[in-house]
Amino acid sequence: MKKKVISKKRRKAGPGKVALKSTVTRSPKSTEMKHLSWDTVEVEALSPLFHRQLIVGKEIMLARILLKKGCLVPWHSHVNEQVSSIFGGALKFWIDGKEIVVGPGQVLTIPPNMPHKAEALEDTLAIDIFSPPRADWINKTDSYLRK
Amino acid sequence: MKKKVISKKRRKAGPGKVALKSTVTRSPKSTEMKHLSWDTVEVEALSPLFHRQLIVGKEIMLARILLKKGCLVPWHSHVNEQVSSIFGGALKFWIDGKEIVVGPGQVLTIPPNMPHKAEALEDTLAIDIFSPPRADWINKTDSYLRK
Repeated sequence: MKKKVISKKRRKAGPGKVALKSTVTRSPKSTEMKHLSWDTVEVEALSPLFHRQLIVGKEIMLARILLKKGCLVPWHSHVNEQVSSIFGGALKFWIDGKEIVVGPGQVLTIPPNMPHKAEALEDTLAIDIFSPPRADWINKTDSYLRK
Repeated sequence: MKKKVISKKRRKAGPGKVALKSTVTRSPKSTEMKHLSWDTVEVEALSPLFHRQLIVGKEIMLARILLKKGCLVPWHSHVNEQVSSIFGGALKFWIDGKEIVVGPGQVLTIPPNMPHKAEALEDTLAIDIFSPPRADWINKTDSYLRK
């Protein structure tokens, strides 16, 4: 029964891989100029291992994420393009048939709809960029991360 | 005569402000996953004061820029949304009727078509994000920066 409910909300992207729906907002998008400091942007704790801050523009969203060692992001995909920049620590990705460890000073570009999972090998600071902005992150409907 | 040639290539965004044309590519866009290190991305010297590296995705472009103190970016605008993150130094913007100094740990979001100019108050390291990617930066037709 539980599986049936989940299947209504998500499409499968392959064995064990979830293609997330509702990741693009249809509501009016910000067109204001904003000057912000990460120090004053709300920090959201999705789990004890996953903390996140968001800066949302019109077509660009920045997510500053702090992952504790051992944090697992399960298999998923989304229509939003993603570019992950690592500033500290190490984040291991399973993507496109490969295992890739992304470290400080490195960048991973993830095309739309490409399934991926990740694990923090160390405490990790990253900035993930999405286009368009991730509606599920803005609306806090990203239950796959809140376990 | 020179002015006439320039006026064919650019539209004015207001007194002394240039609305850049040809900043969006019509060519096929990258949909590959890429794992890159800034250490190995080509560094382009636009002037003695302005060095730049590019990582280009489908709808997201990252430009890592190193501006020497005193570097001036003249008034311009573009249809591409811009988000500037500062990692070292200080970059002063004239934008939306305001003068704003953006420092380390700070972010400025610039909506599409909003005229702005900038000056590096110190040697500055920034990552500018554009969506869609800046065709004039990719094609090196950004003559307004090469003075």
